[in-house]
Amino acid sequence: MKPPLRIAIAGLGTVGAGTVKLLQRNAELLAARAGRRLVLGAVAARDRKRERGVDLSAVRWVEDAAALARDPEIDVVVELIGGSDGIAREVVAGAIAAGKHVVTANKALIAHHGTELARAAEANGVALLFEAAVAGGIPILKTLREGLAANQVTRIYGILNGTCNYILTAMRDTGRDFAEVLREAQQLGYAEADPSFDIDGIDAAHKLAVLAAVAFGNAVDFAGVHVEGIRHVSALDIDFAAELGYRIKLLGMARLTEHGLEQRVHACMVPRSTPIAHVEGVFNGIVVEGDFVGRVMLEGRGAGAEPTASAVVADVLDIALGRWSASFALPASALPMRPASPMARHVGAFYLRLMVVDRPGVIADVAAALRDEQVSMEQMIQRGRSPGEAVPVVLTTHETEEAAMRRAVARIDRLGSVIEPTRMIRVENL
Amino acid sequence: MKPPLRIAIAGLGTVGAGTVKLLQRNAELLAARAGRRLVLGAVAARDRKRERGVDLSAVRWVEDAAALARDPEIDVVVELIGGSDGIAREVVAGAIAAGKHVVTANKALIAHHGTELARAAEANGVALLFEAAVAGGIPILKTLREGLAANQVTRIYGILNGTCNYILTAMRDTGRDFAEVLREAQQLGYAEADPSFDIDGIDAAHKLAVLAAVAFGNAVDFAGVHVEGIRHVSALDIDFAAELGYRIKLLGMARLTEHGLEQRVHACMVPRSTPIAHVEGVFNGIVVEGDFVGRVMLEGRGAGAEPTASAVVADVLDIALGRWSASFALPASALPMRPASPMARHVGAFYLRLMVVDRPGVIADVAAALRDEQVSMEQMIQRGRSPGEAVPVVLTTHETEEAAMRRAVARIDRLGSVIEPTRMIRVENL
Repeated sequence: MKPPLRIAIAGLGTVGAGTVKLLQRNAELLAARAGRRLVLGAVAARDRKRERGVDLSAVRWVEDAAALARDPEIDVVVELIGGSDGIAREVVAGAIAAGKHVVTANKALIAHHGTELARAAEANGVALLFEAAVAGGIPILKTLREGLAANQVTRIYGILNGTCNYILTAMRDTGRDFAEVLREAQQLGYAEADPSFDIDGIDAAHKLAVLAAVAFGNAVDFAGVHVEGIRHVSALDIDFAAELGYRIKLLGMARLTEHGLEQRVHACMVPRSTPIAHVEGVFNGIVVEGDFVGRVMLEGRGAGAEPTASAVVADVLDIALGRWSASFALPASALPMRPASPMARHVGAFYLRLMVVDRPGVIADVAAALRDEQVSMEQMIQRGRSPGEAVPVVLTTHETEEAAMRRAVARIDRLGSVIEPTRMIRVENL
Repeated sequence: MKPPLRIAIAGLGTVGAGTVKLLQRNAELLAARAGRRLVLGAVAARDRKRERGVDLSAVRWVEDAAALARDPEIDVVVELIGGSDGIAREVVAGAIAAGKHVVTANKALIAHHGTELARAAEANGVALLFEAAVAGGIPILKTLREGLAANQVTRIYGILNGTCNYILTAMRDTGRDFAEVLREAQQLGYAEADPSFDIDGIDAAHKLAVLAAVAFGNAVDFAGVHVEGIRHVSALDIDFAAELGYRIKLLGMARLTEHGLEQRVHACMVPRSTPIAHVEGVFNGIVVEGDFVGRVMLEGRGAGAEPTASAVVADVLDIALGRWSASFALPASALPMRPASPMARHVGAFYLRLMVVDRPGVIADVAAALRDEQVSMEQMIQRGRSPGEAVPVVLTTHETEEAAMRRAVARIDRLGSVIEPTRMIRVENL
């Protein structure tokens, strides 16, 4: 048997404690699979006294996480502190510089500094793995890097944030509105006290930037992600979506276009018949479309201590067995930075909901606004009639360039009979 | 750059031709990912003149596939001949003995001889990889061996045969009966002229035996798989399943029980709300339940030249990068052969459909037969009334041991008012 692999964990929050628990509970299984023992050599965390539900009595404690990077008794540093900069970045960069392998669950760090860190890891001949940074327990990065590596990826999209998916699923199931469901999600622990990171799409955008880099062999380009959240999704739109055969999901999507790398995170309507529409509640799901494999979907838990620990330790096993390879599937030193494909150039279908005063001629005015921007209507629903009152009018369009759609919406919103800003939701006919 | 990896392909049927096409079309991508070129050094196939849609003019042809094993110009032999014995087995065993890496898509070979071949590969220090043998393009074996390797797998189940899934989906969508839909599937090329290998569950059983070996670290035990096909599934049962909130799927399922390794392939009812119920048509789907990751599902194309080629070449890439590991995730020399957990000891819920003469006292007799075997009824549907005529009576049970269920069915079938053998379908409350 090979000598043990000595692991240090920096950060003992819920994921850190889950990782310790996994290393302890499945120690025999891991040793059998790795052909060597995985030994927890040290941990670094601020509060030594906090109850974490795991036995840390035999583990060396280190006050300063950054010191782990220089610890000669450690082979792999597992960074579970979080945050794109500060101590997390220091620990990771320091460990790499000291010739240690690094495993991290830190999506913000990889989204902001992944390419630079991967270059350093490559120069130092060490692994930098971050399966747990994207979609928790779902091994999507390994699948892209290895399992589907023979394919040119044509498109990737997914439900990458369990909080948003929980909220949208609960809104649909209960008919309640966003604010109320968010409060409930906070009470259940599915949403943070300050939920903006999740519901404004930032978390999903971090993950999408990492996914897109691996899928398309691009430098990580978080700044190039178009991000919208789900605050504006209303119960009314969820109802209309159902009527039209769609569900509303927050998706992260990426593909190469003639303009560069398109990366976008926003709520969209997906056909009820497509597999991603059935990824519900706190589950995540990612679809990869490859030129040979066609469509592959992976679904599972995208967060939580135990699923995330599963991904962290899988990376550690790859290091223990020496079967790790390039962080982004291609040499980091050679990753191109393609231009970001602008949203104005995005071509897709759209759903519009107008709130109009119900009087003769309104629809003709709306139709004229669309015609003037060469937007072609697919269908229209006008529900109920209340002459002189505000009623919703819903329409969907054929494929059109987003810039034209936005100009048409601006025209519509200037009409006297349109009494609220028109709500636009992109339709993805997956 | 490292020297090229020299590949030989034995067998140029549709998957072989698809693999050649992939190696040619994505050559630059593969070289970039592998850090070396993947070169097709030789092919062996009987009919040199057949049109295969790929350019083979620059490739060396070998008459005798077995000779590839001894070819000093070849590093990796890709076996795509098929069949559990004969030339395929000879090529694989010969290549391993000669110190060459082997990639194969041959499920029958691995189901019957996988353990022995993996031991030989291990003894010779070469890779034996067979991702394409299970679920086509879906990287489920890598996911079990690597992505989810930190978990104790508690259960694995999946839709492993696209032909059966197509037939069952079409029966549900159209209301037509088995024989008619099978004929249509044959016309569309989704079923073979002799369909028994697929529809009797053998193909799914081959795949399940391989999956279970990797998931549970067991020697491959094809003989231990309980196998039933879908010939007996009727349009009537599909209707009742829908009424009860279920769909009928052919699943392969495996788990460890107190009696050993349970492996079974049969049609069963799954709740419409569970993700596997939405894997439709020719798609395959596999659910892995792990002690830390929870439930993960992978869905994609389980057959076809291009998806299968995607899996074959992913294995070749792993060899090119030296990142392959043990065929069954543990040293093959140490794989235990657990006893097969007998179906008589299986505990589960059941659906029964009785055809009875509609007269007073029938239900009381049926209920007594169940009671006498301690089988507890969950619900009963009696549809329509035609006094004196045959009508279906459907019931579902709570969890019960299969042996007791079978005894109860035998009692029921002896009742004078029961005029056809009772149809029993297992219910999986996933």
